[in-house]
Amino acid sequence: MRRKFSPNAGNPSWHVKASQPVNYEVRLCHRVFDLRRTDLLEAGGPGDGRARRFVVVDEAVDRAYGAELRQYLDHHDVTHEIMVVQSGEVRKEVDMVLRLVERLDTFGIDRRREPIIVVGGGVLMDIVGLAASLYRRGTPFVRVPTTLIGLVDAGVGVKTGVNFNGHKNQLGTYAAAELTLLDRSFLSTLSRRHISNGLAEILKVGLIKDEALFGLLERHGRLVLDENFQGLSPEGDGAATAILERAISGMLEELEPNLWEETLERSMDYGHTFSPSVEMLGLPSMLHGEAVCLDMALSTALACGRGLMNEDECGRVFAVMSDLGLPTWSPLHTPEVLGRALHATVRRRDGQQRLPLPVGIGKTLFVNDVRTGELASAIALQREMALRGSLEAA
Amino acid sequence: MRRKFSPNAGNPSWHVKASQPVNYEVRLCHRVFDLRRTDLLEAGGPGDGRARRFVVVDEAVDRAYGAELRQYLDHHDVTHEIMVVQSGEVRKEVDMVLRLVERLDTFGIDRRREPIIVVGGGVLMDIVGLAASLYRRGTPFVRVPTTLIGLVDAGVGVKTGVNFNGHKNQLGTYAAAELTLLDRSFLSTLSRRHISNGLAEILKVGLIKDEALFGLLERHGRLVLDENFQGLSPEGDGAATAILERAISGMLEELEPNLWEETLERSMDYGHTFSPSVEMLGLPSMLHGEAVCLDMALSTALACGRGLMNEDECGRVFAVMSDLGLPTWSPLHTPEVLGRALHATVRRRDGQQRLPLPVGIGKTLFVNDVRTGELASAIALQREMALRGSLEAA
Ligand SMILES: NC(=O)c1ccc[n+]([C@@H]2O[C@H](COP(=O)([O-])OP(=O)(O)OC[C@H]3O[C@@H](n4cnc5c(N)ncnc54)[C@H](O)[C@@H]3O)[C@@H](O)[C@H]2O)c1
Ligand SMILES: NC(=O)c1ccc[n+]([C@@H]2O[C@H](COP(=O)([O-])OP(=O)(O)OC[C@H]3O[C@@H](n4cnc5c(N)ncnc54)[C@H](O)[C@@H]3O)[C@@H](O)[C@H]2O)c1
Repeated sequence: MRRKFSPNAGNPSWHVKASQPVNYEVRLCHRVFDLRRTDLLEAGGPGDGRARRFVVVDEAVDRAYGAELRQYLDHHDVTHEIMVVQSGEVRKEVDMVLRLVERLDTFGIDRRREPIIVVGGGVLMDIVGLAASLYRRGTPFVRVPTTLIGLVDAGVGVKTGVNFNGHKNQLGTYAAAELTLLDRSFLSTLSRRHISNGLAEILKVGLIKDEALFGLLERHGRLVLDENFQGLSPEGDGAATAILERAISGMLEELEPNLWEETLERSMDYGHTFSPSVEMLGLPSMLHGEAVCLDMALSTALACGRGLMNEDECGRVFAVMSDLGLPTWSPLHTPEVLGRALHATVRRRDGQQRLPLPVGIGKTLFVNDVRTGELASAIALQREMALRGSLEAA
Repeated sequence: MRRKFSPNAGNPSWHVKASQPVNYEVRLCHRVFDLRRTDLLEAGGPGDGRARRFVVVDEAVDRAYGAELRQYLDHHDVTHEIMVVQSGEVRKEVDMVLRLVERLDTFGIDRRREPIIVVGGGVLMDIVGLAASLYRRGTPFVRVPTTLIGLVDAGVGVKTGVNFNGHKNQLGTYAAAELTLLDRSFLSTLSRRHISNGLAEILKVGLIKDEALFGLLERHGRLVLDENFQGLSPEGDGAATAILERAISGMLEELEPNLWEETLERSMDYGHTFSPSVEMLGLPSMLHGEAVCLDMALSTALACGRGLMNEDECGRVFAVMSDLGLPTWSPLHTPEVLGRALHATVRRRDGQQRLPLPVGIGKTLFVNDVRTGELASAIALQREMALRGSLEAA
């Protein structure tokens, strides 16, 4: 702390300076609930007596894996309460956070030694992360993502949040889970549409910074989708491993230097300029990754219009999107909706567009000068490319 | 980021390491709303056009200073919305946070350049701090505390929070206001009881680490209370200045190395072991500082019973408490209530009591072994000391 006297008034003032260290681990592992594994109980203290854990599980996950989970906790002699929660984007509301905290409070946990465990998709991780960060100003938690979005995106960063007042993630915090366990075997029960959904975020990483990852998706994207990342064929197994590892590494490399988003120019925001508004309008039927993919398709068209990408590259991008089972066009993409979406994003990005556009495949730059006319032409081009793609597929 | 392969399973894992810098200023100043002062608008950017500010004001403060505030904002050409909020401990609930965020969202602010301004007591600062830290995962804010608790405690640290499920500050975050302006002239309209209330936290600083501050309170505490810290006499003026500066410096020295409470042994928790439960039971009539003072009186008795303080020192402490208009005894101080209160605190302090006890005047140590019998004797001694004090005063 520095104390000084400000020149103009002779009034003393204090300058407080501190820095909060954040450390967390993201670990790949197979079959978290295998009775011989101890990863899930590693974080937190052993306590004086039996371990106690408050576990929050997605309802669909509970149906498929609940018995295994209970057996695991009993086997390791853990006093537990399991709260089963219906998820889905429309339930990502502050009420859910409060219900959760209330149950947690009744169960009772020690402040630092008994981490909350969350097993579910991105929605549940965002909700539980927020609840954990608020409860007593911060309670440790451990994440086990069970969707592809969870494995490659929501489960590796530090953002938590819920929707509010019609806006995506309007309320939230930055809070790191002590440990995140990435177990792709959960994906065996995930619907094809949700696999595609996660592939959108993987494609994003390829497009902004990793041409080799894009290449893997071009060659094997359809296969890993067909196999739910379960490695049912040797080729599919190698591809699933390589794609997941590259995506996670790439994601973490981008996140680490800017965990608290001090820089508002984030290439990870590729696909996230127009999509927050479009996703909210598309609810309950539209998925996050679908909205992101629509945004990436539009940005690709914008880049093409500016000569940042050639037509061949543009076509390859649209083709991979279709391969991955993702939409490249939506009637929600009107100049009005997208104009308003851009305006809302400018507010979040502090008065500038900071719109990441692809430069070829694997690079980006930021622009601040997209006007209504250019947006309208890009929308028209996106529509045309999408139509051409679907004709070729037919 | 370090990537490594864990030995037992050959599974890759990523270790993310980062650190979040926090810088903030706490500035003493006279008459913040003086039209010539610009402190209030210093934080945040000037923006492209006119400055915009969302201002949250305590209702009582608005009655006394609202006209000045509006004149100030108009004079400086600030587009503003003023939200007037009834405060008080019972309104410190999550609903208030949500109402505030809703209004803020309708007004609309840029993410980083248009800090929220809060003018009010500790309750309002805790609520607005929480709202600001949640809105878009963090929106800057500027604090103008108007109570003594606000000036010396709630306004200088980084804790935010609301009560939940019958527990004090059960939900909250750590979030620093960019700038806090401490203007003691607001205290002119504060009730005597609320001045006493703030003096409890000042007394705490004296007792745990600053014998000279305790001495100032012994000599001038009653006077600054009578003068509402307005310096109506030369002696009162000097004392008010010295007491405030020592209290704030002492508070910040303790807070800075442990802003996020990584260490659960905090001497600043003196007076905050039993009081959270007692304060909630005493609502709506009991004030925070009163509950803290009752707790300090009990801890003094505990210290006396252990020989950490002699009887003379103990008597001086009780005498200053009475001088400052603070209670030293409450019928809520039963062995049952205090036993349960201690149990709840042990959970918050991760399984240990970590109870700060005074050692003479100006020092503390931590103990973990207070049992029911000792607690009952200390309660009896506290009651006796309080009774003796009131007989002497009569
Ligand atoms: N915090 C972040 O950094 C971040 C990053 C990306 C996305 N997100 C958020 O993540 C959310 C999207 O995540 P999501 O797609 O995982 O949604 P989700 O959590 O709603 O899960 C999708 C569906 O799959 C079901 N499910 C989950 N695991 C399953 C399994 N193993 N088998 C069968 N069904 C299963 C769920 O019940 C749900 O119906 C969005 O709200 C988005 O904002 C957050
Ligand atoms: N965050 C922290 O680090 C921290 C530290 C200490 C206390 N607190 C919190 O602060 C709260 C207590 O703060 P408080 O005592 O300021 O309570 P408060 O905000 O309720 O204010 C007390 C009363 O004084 C009125 N008031 C405020 N300023 C006035 C003025 N200038 N003139 C006339 N009336 C005025 C208010 O309307 C209210 O009725 C508690 O909830 C406590 O938990 C927080």
